[in-house]
Amino acid sequence: MTPFKLTDELLVEIRELISDHKNVGLRAMMKEFHYADIAEIADELTIDEATYLIKLLDSEKTSDILAEMDEDVREAVLNNLSAKEIAGELEELDTDDAADIVSELPQEIVQRVISEIEDKEHAKDIVDLLRYDEDSAGGLMAKELVKVNENWNVLTCVKEMRAQAENVTRVHSIYVVDDDDKLKGRLSLKDLLTNSTKTHIKVGYISKVDAVNVNEKGEEVARIMSKYDLEAIPVVDEIGRLVGRITIDDIVDVIREEADKDYQLAAGISQDVEADDSIWELTRARLPWLILGLFGGLGAAAIMGGFEEMIAKHAILFFFTPLIAAMAGNVGVQSSAIIVQGLANDDLKGGIANRLWKEMLLALLNGIILAVLLLLFTWLWKGDFNTALAISISLIAVIVVAGIIGTFIPLFLNQRGIDPAIATGPFITTSNDIFGILIYFFIAKSVLGI
Amino acid sequence: MTPFKLTDELLVEIRELISDHKNVGLRAMMKEFHYADIAEIADELTIDEATYLIKLLDSEKTSDILAEMDEDVREAVLNNLSAKEIAGELEELDTDDAADIVSELPQEIVQRVISEIEDKEHAKDIVDLLRYDEDSAGGLMAKELVKVNENWNVLTCVKEMRAQAENVTRVHSIYVVDDDDKLKGRLSLKDLLTNSTKTHIKVGYISKVDAVNVNEKGEEVARIMSKYDLEAIPVVDEIGRLVGRITIDDIVDVIREEADKDYQLAAGISQDVEADDSIWELTRARLPWLILGLFGGLGAAAIMGGFEEMIAKHAILFFFTPLIAAMAGNVGVQSSAIIVQGLANDDLKGGIANRLWKEMLLALLNGIILAVLLLLFTWLWKGDFNTALAISISLIAVIVVAGIIGTFIPLFLNQRGIDPAIATGPFITTSNDIFGILIYFFIAKSVLGI
Repeated sequence: MTPFKLTDELLVEIRELISDHKNVGLRAMMKEFHYADIAEIADELTIDEATYLIKLLDSEKTSDILAEMDEDVREAVLNNLSAKEIAGELEELDTDDAADIVSELPQEIVQRVISEIEDKEHAKDIVDLLRYDEDSAGGLMAKELVKVNENWNVLTCVKEMRAQAENVTRVHSIYVVDDDDKLKGRLSLKDLLTNSTKTHIKVGYISKVDAVNVNEKGEEVARIMSKYDLEAIPVVDEIGRLVGRITIDDIVDVIREEADKDYQLAAGISQDVEADDSIWELTRARLPWLILGLFGGLGAAAIMGGFEEMIAKHAILFFFTPLIAAMAGNVGVQSSAIIVQGLANDDLKGGIANRLWKEMLLALLNGIILAVLLLLFTWLWKGDFNTALAISISLIAVIVVAGIIGTFIPLFLNQRGIDPAIATGPFITTSNDIFGILIYFFIAKSVLGI
Repeated sequence: MTPFKLTDELLVEIRELISDHKNVGLRAMMKEFHYADIAEIADELTIDEATYLIKLLDSEKTSDILAEMDEDVREAVLNNLSAKEIAGELEELDTDDAADIVSELPQEIVQRVISEIEDKEHAKDIVDLLRYDEDSAGGLMAKELVKVNENWNVLTCVKEMRAQAENVTRVHSIYVVDDDDKLKGRLSLKDLLTNSTKTHIKVGYISKVDAVNVNEKGEEVARIMSKYDLEAIPVVDEIGRLVGRITIDDIVDVIREEADKDYQLAAGISQDVEADDSIWELTRARLPWLILGLFGGLGAAAIMGGFEEMIAKHAILFFFTPLIAAMAGNVGVQSSAIIVQGLANDDLKGGIANRLWKEMLLALLNGIILAVLLLLFTWLWKGDFNTALAISISLIAVIVVAGIIGTFIPLFLNQRGIDPAIATGPFITTSNDIFGILIYFFIAKSVLGI
C-alpha cells in the first residue's frame, strides 16, 4: 500500500479539473481514492469546489466523505444541498453518523430532510438517536446491529442474520435478546465458524456480556472498552432493552479528542482549535489564558512593589524572581499533570491526604537538591553566603507549596465534578507565580533578618 | 453491567484470603472477575501475594492477567516462576502478547522458557516476533490470523478456516494469499454471512486491501487505522508476504501511550511514570526538567545583573520581569503545543514560512491587546506614562519573538526527525524566559532613552 499524500500539485490538478468541469476525469480520479482521502481533499477546497465534487459523485461514496469531513466545511457544503439531496446522503450512512450530521443542520430544515428519507425505519432510528447527548453512550451508538431471539433455533438465526447483516457495515457480535428485546447474551462470530449449525441458541450463547447504559458518559465507555479490549459494546436502556451498539472506531475518536483537549488545556488553549484555524479563532482560544497570565504578572509586580524597600541593599533578591516563578510554575504543572493523567486513566488509588503527603516528600527531595545547586552557584557568583542561603531556603519552601497546590487543585476539582484538566497549564502557573513570589520574599526577608 | 471497582475493603479481603491460604474462596472469587480486573488487583498486591494468586489460578486465565498487569509487577512475578511455568503461560497467549512478555525476561532464561513451550509452531512464531522493534508494525502484530489460498474453493476454505479460527481470539477478516503466501486481498466476514457457499474464492474476494509494511512505525499504523476506520490490518514483509496482523485494541494502547507521552513532555515529565510510582522514579522523571528551569532562572538573573545600573531609577522594570517571563513562556507553550498537535494528527498543510508568518500576525494581535491592557494598568498604578509605555512596547516584542520561537522549534525538530514534543513545556518556557527578559530590558532601555 502506498500511503495517500495530499500534495500541493495534486490539489492544483483537482482544482483545475473542477474549474474546467472535467467530470469524467474527476470521477475516474476519485474512484481510486478512499473516501477518507477525498474528505481530506475536500477540506482543502473552497466550499463551492467541495460542493461541486460532492454533487458529482455517487451518494454511496459522498455520504462517507461527508461523515469524515471537517465539521465546518461539511456544514457549509450541506448548506448548498437540497433537503432531498441531504436525505439521500443520510440514507447511505449508518444511523450514528447520520444523526451526527442531522444534529448540525439548521433546525428549520431538519424535519424536511427527515421526511425525505425513503427508508422510514432508518429515519425513525436517526430521530431516536437525536435525543441523546453527544457525549453519552446514546450519542455514540448506532442502531445497526445483528440480534437474534433466544427462542430461535440456529437455522432461523442464520437466515435472519443474513438479512440483518446486509445493513451492518461490520458484524462484531450477534446479540441474543428475549421476547421483550432485553439483552441476554451474545453469540460470537467465532462460534459461528466453529460450532455445528445444529446447536440451539438458548443453550449455546454466552450469557455474560458487557453492556453500557445509554446515559453512560462517552469517556467511561472508552475506559471500559479499552480496559476489557472490546471491539463493540451493546447499549441498553434503563430496563435492559438492547437499543444500540458502539464500535471501537468511534471510541478511538473519543480517546483522541479527550487527549487533545487535555493537552490543549495544559498548554493554555481553550476550545477545540487547530493550527489551520483562522487567526481570529486562535486568538479567542489563546487570549483568555494570556490575560490570566497578565493579571498574575501584575499581581507579582504588586507584591514586589510591596518589598521595594529591600531593593537598595538586596537587589539580588529581585534578580531571582523569574527563577522562583519558573520553578513554582514548573513544579505545579508537573504535579497537576500527573494527577490529571492518573484521574483520566483511572489509576489513582488512595485518598487525597496520601497524595498530598507523597507530593510533599517528593517536592522536598527535589527542592533540597535544587536548593543546594542554587546555593553553590549563587554563592560562587556573588560571594554572599547569607543571601545565597536565604534564596535557597525560600526555593525549597516555594517548591513544596507549589507541589501541594498542583496536587490539591485537580483532586479538589475532580471531587466537585469539574474537569481537573482546566487546573493545569496557565491556571496553575499563574497562581503559583504569585504564591511563589510572595513566599519567596517573606522567607528571604526573615532569613536575612531584615 | 455493574462496573468493577477496586475498593480498599475488597483489597483487604483478598489479602486475608491469600494470607490464610483460603484457596477455595479465592478461586471462587476470582472466577467472578474479568482478567483485566484481576490484573488491576494484582498490581496493588505485594509481589509474593501476586505470585501466590497467579500460581493458584489456571494458566488459561493467568496468562491474560499477566498480559494486562503493570510491567514492573509482571517482571517481579515472573521472576518467581520457573521456566516451565512461564512457558505454560505463554502457551495460552496470542503471539504478540507472548513476545512482549518474553522480551522483558532476563536473557539467560529466554532460551529455556522457549524450549519449554510445547507447541513448537507457537514457539517459532514468538521467536520470529522478537526480532522486530517494539514500536514497529512487526512489534505490534500477532501471528494469529485466518488466511485462505486464492486457489481454494469455498468449501475447502470453510473447513480450513474453522481449524484456524480455533487459535484466533477474534476473526476480523479472512486474508487471501497466493501460493507464495503473498497477500492478494480479503474476504469479509459479512461476505461469509451473505454469500452463497458455492462462490469460488478467486472470483469472490476483495482485491483492494490496506496493508502495512512490517517496518512501519507504530504511530503511522495508528494513523492509518484510525483514518480509515480499520479494526485490523494485515502486515506484509518487503516482498509482500503476509506475516501477521495488527488489531485495533493494540492500536488503542499505542494512541493512549502516544498521547500520554506528549502530555507528560509538555508538563516537564520525562519517561513513562504514573502517580503511583515511587518517589525515586518520579524524581528521576521530574528533576532533570527542574534543573533545566533552574539554569534558565540563573541565566535570567545574570541578565538582570547586567542591567543593575538601571535599578536605582527604574526599579519598576524589575518588578515586571516575572510578568514578562510568564507571558513569553505562555505564548511559547501555546504556539508549540498547537504545532506539536498538528504534526501528531498530521493535519498541518503548507510550509514553515507560512506558519511563522501566521504565528507572527497572531502574536502581534494578541501582543497589542495585552500591551494596551498592561499600559493602562501600569500607568494608573504608577502614574508614569513613559515607563508604562516602555514596558508595554517590550511586551509586544517579547510575545512576537516567543510565538516565533515556539512555532519554529517543533517544526525544525520534526524536520530533523526528532520528536517535536520534547520542545514543549520546560524547554520552551526556559528558553523563552531568557530571551524574553533580554529583549525586555534592551527595548525598555532604548524606549526610555537610557
